[in-house]
Amino acid sequence: MTPAPITLRPIGIVESPLTDPAAAPCQGDEGAPECRLVLDQDMAAALYGIGIGDSVVVVTWLHRGDRSLRAVHPRGDPTRAQLGVFATRSPHRPNPIGLHTAQVMAVDGTCLRVSGVEAIDGTPILDLKPVLQPPGQR
Amino acid sequence: MTPAPITLRPIGIVESPLTDPAAAPCQGDEGAPECRLVLDQDMAAALYGIGIGDSVVVVTWLHRGDRSLRAVHPRGDPTRAQLGVFATRSPHRPNPIGLHTAQVMAVDGTCLRVSGVEAIDGTPILDLKPVLQPPGQR
Repeated sequence: MTPAPITLRPIGIVESPLTDPAAAPCQGDEGAPECRLVLDQDMAAALYGIGIGDSVVVVTWLHRGDRSLRAVHPRGDPTRAQLGVFATRSPHRPNPIGLHTAQVMAVDGTCLRVSGVEAIDGTPILDLKPVLQPPGQR
Repeated sequence: MTPAPITLRPIGIVESPLTDPAAAPCQGDEGAPECRLVLDQDMAAALYGIGIGDSVVVVTWLHRGDRSLRAVHPRGDPTRAQLGVFATRSPHRPNPIGLHTAQVMAVDGTCLRVSGVEAIDGTPILDLKPVLQPPGQR
């Protein structure tokens, strides 16, 4: 008994110098460049409280992902045995949702400059969250 | 220039003794009970490689979230000043995607028993990912 399909409305897009998925780092801490998170104007109130230096989780839609794949070679390395996509961070998965931990470098209206996001230019953004603090600091 | 809406097809649901969002813990490490992740049969191949003891990120759709809210009191505490929803982990946000770090306790076909998920019974599951290992262990 699977729930009904769900409609997401992206809240903005990633502007990045990365344009080729094959050339992008596999993870944000593997040399991803700074990029801009360009959010819709009507998200201004939802950003209140986010500031320079904050660590955030950027939730993206990896729009170039292949939703039909169920197994992949980890890190696209054909010398490694295939694993189910849920045992990997591959962009190819039934719902290609990307999670990126990033640091906020600048805030300008509804645009954030951040470090450490390996998503390519034009990637839709679904959500932003603070990195979860330890119990007692929430 | 906002990207077009996106359609997600949930991969399964959470079966949990938690039924009341108001009574559920705010985070999984605040006393969430064990629960079952009941995935569709056609996700079997995508689970290959996930085993007991693994730490996984469960990505859910917080179906009771209010998508119109842009600001909330953190942790629903009216004595705390409101913040934009992107500066909180509130379930109320434009795209109410939930992130839960959980430990796999048992695997039975396409059902996983996990600890530490604060989602209520019936919550749709969108994705599963391994917790990211440090560079050099990927």
